[in-house]
Amino acid sequence: MTPAPVAAGRNTKSAAGLNGVGPRGFQAAGIACGIKAAAGAKDLALIYSETPAHVAGLFTKNRVKAAPVLATRQRVRRGICRALIVNSGNANACTGERGLRDAGAMVHVTAGALGIPPQQVLVASTGVIGHPLPMKRIQEGIPPLVARLSPDGFADAAEAIMTTDTRPKIITERVPIGGDEITILGMAKGAGMIHPQLATMLAFIMTDASIEAKELSPLLREGVRSTFNRVTIDGDTSTNDMVLLLANGAASTRSLHPYESRWRPFQDALFAVMDHLARSIVRDGEGRTKVVEICIQGAKSVREAEKVAFRIAHSPLVKTAFFGQDPNWGRIMAAMGTAGITFNPHKVNIFFDDVAVVEEGIAAPEADEGKQRQVLQQEEFKVTIDLHTGNAQASVLTTDLSTEYVKINASYST
Amino acid sequence: MTPAPVAAGRNTKSAAGLNGVGPRGFQAAGIACGIKAAAGAKDLALIYSETPAHVAGLFTKNRVKAAPVLATRQRVRRGICRALIVNSGNANACTGERGLRDAGAMVHVTAGALGIPPQQVLVASTGVIGHPLPMKRIQEGIPPLVARLSPDGFADAAEAIMTTDTRPKIITERVPIGGDEITILGMAKGAGMIHPQLATMLAFIMTDASIEAKELSPLLREGVRSTFNRVTIDGDTSTNDMVLLLANGAASTRSLHPYESRWRPFQDALFAVMDHLARSIVRDGEGRTKVVEICIQGAKSVREAEKVAFRIAHSPLVKTAFFGQDPNWGRIMAAMGTAGITFNPHKVNIFFDDVAVVEEGIAAPEADEGKQRQVLQQEEFKVTIDLHTGNAQASVLTTDLSTEYVKINASYST
Repeated sequence: MTPAPVAAGRNTKSAAGLNGVGPRGFQAAGIACGIKAAAGAKDLALIYSETPAHVAGLFTKNRVKAAPVLATRQRVRRGICRALIVNSGNANACTGERGLRDAGAMVHVTAGALGIPPQQVLVASTGVIGHPLPMKRIQEGIPPLVARLSPDGFADAAEAIMTTDTRPKIITERVPIGGDEITILGMAKGAGMIHPQLATMLAFIMTDASIEAKELSPLLREGVRSTFNRVTIDGDTSTNDMVLLLANGAASTRSLHPYESRWRPFQDALFAVMDHLARSIVRDGEGRTKVVEICIQGAKSVREAEKVAFRIAHSPLVKTAFFGQDPNWGRIMAAMGTAGITFNPHKVNIFFDDVAVVEEGIAAPEADEGKQRQVLQQEEFKVTIDLHTGNAQASVLTTDLSTEYVKINASYST
Repeated sequence: MTPAPVAAGRNTKSAAGLNGVGPRGFQAAGIACGIKAAAGAKDLALIYSETPAHVAGLFTKNRVKAAPVLATRQRVRRGICRALIVNSGNANACTGERGLRDAGAMVHVTAGALGIPPQQVLVASTGVIGHPLPMKRIQEGIPPLVARLSPDGFADAAEAIMTTDTRPKIITERVPIGGDEITILGMAKGAGMIHPQLATMLAFIMTDASIEAKELSPLLREGVRSTFNRVTIDGDTSTNDMVLLLANGAASTRSLHPYESRWRPFQDALFAVMDHLARSIVRDGEGRTKVVEICIQGAKSVREAEKVAFRIAHSPLVKTAFFGQDPNWGRIMAAMGTAGITFNPHKVNIFFDDVAVVEEGIAAPEADEGKQRQVLQQEEFKVTIDLHTGNAQASVLTTDLSTEYVKINASYST
């Protein structure tokens, strides 16, 4: 398993030790307002920038888009954000006109309580689809939420955006850049319905670096391509997912630009945050017992490598074999054969970590099923497949398909 | 649930009462030769036509094709078949040159024992991928298998082609056609790795009608399109699947042609056999507790309707909700949104049987979750979705995704 890239000289902290290390000029809070059935479960989060931040966003490509996705996508186009209000426990999706009004009301009540323009307030929701939001609880929850805003509130906020997640996903990176100390904080939620094609889950990344809005968008897009869009749990794609990147410039008045030497270390730190969050989501995959990297090498193009990797990562038969720790490589070959790309099965090599499994399309001559099984008994391992059709490669991170996944998802809405 | 179409005046028998009702001039046998680990489990089947039969076949579109698929596809092109030798317990897939030699040896030993040309012997295999066939057992099994050939042997043969199937799938239809009594017998195996794109499983259909080889192919293709290609369990596609249709003319010397009135009743009876087998496969889906028909109406084209239906049928989140008897229609909307077709979510209506669930994209005004739940508590039910984008429709039959499915597939090869 390739670890998340960590550049030298950076100071990474996740979950526990977050106090006081958030990006300057940002505050956050998370409270329970009664959307979730469980008493005291946090379900309302607020992220606030003391000054207007530049913002970029990527949104679900699902044709069925939740009301908050529509509302936020429109506001992100203006490129300026002061606050983000998020609820969990209810997706406000497939809720029609009422859903749009409710998303608008969340924005306006938040803007009013903060005394800022509603055009600068974004909104996100996650949870069950098709039920109207309990607006009274949310509206009554916003003033106390605002009252709790603090530079130490990010852990609470990260908890308040969880649904079936078993733990909050949050990380900070600090990186010295040209005399300034820049901080990047990311939080995410997601444990199922994770799939590329979109901004794959809720992920909010805040930095006190100064970056123009027009440079924020391509940066976010590039980061998502190699991180959030390379993880998959069940191939389902949500109606609600979004990734937002906010930069308020509180740590530096000098804007960062892609053509200068300060850009690269910042970009590395940002992508490390995104990579960490993406991997955290897979590690918290619903009911998963394994984290598996599917690495396709020797492909004609990155796109073809991705196609094969995702086809394997989404095959229920492959995923159940991982769950069973069963070196049933025939299912991998069968899945590859339906990926819609051209290759010669008799040229394919497969490895589990560094153990040879398939050579030229058949069981490797010295294949040792005991050793193969040992690899699969680990919690994390890597399946490497060489197609021998070219020089491109791509990796995808996925989970197994367990009985527990089925149990979780058979009873989620009830 | 729409029952399989059964035309008036036909005489359908399945499983139990098969003795003596097979198509004239065909014999079959099934024995245990020791491929399967379980003592006495039948794993070698033979189907034999006393005279040369015309044959048509459809084969897996998986790029990774098993040796017997390659061998049989080539022979079917000649259009003539006398015998079909089939083993279960081992797929002879991803077995390289040796696999091709082994498939050839199965053909030649069978041809020798029957005293017929090897060009007229077809071969099929099903089971685990990537292991060489135990050829000694198979070669020693063929002479006693031939010795057991009998017009009453079809039930044994149907049992000998099973893998994870919990019961044999076999049916006969008799239909009077222009003074002749034509019999059609079909058998199939398959309980997982069932998916369209191919001949979806092993299915062998024998009739004593007289049909030209050139008319058999389009007939088989049309039948598969509306039956085997409309069922799906897990979206995985096998390396080994094939559907064969044999017609030996033993009941009639007058060939049937599509332009005459005798054709339609024959075609109806044939498609009823195929429909029955396809439904039997879904009903025997690995670990399934539900059989669900996904019916898409109001689509722009049949192809678009199929795309949406399969996207829903393959969504793990939708399938686990069915398992949980959970009227979580938001997952259906979310799956539809990623089917790659254009529609307006605010025009969508959804029904569970005849209970309104979604109207114009949101929860139906009078929605009664208790009634919805009652529908989902049945073993078989229908989900009807109106897209309001056109007049085309298509139905797909699928299963739920249960904890038992995961258990079966986590331990299959071991």
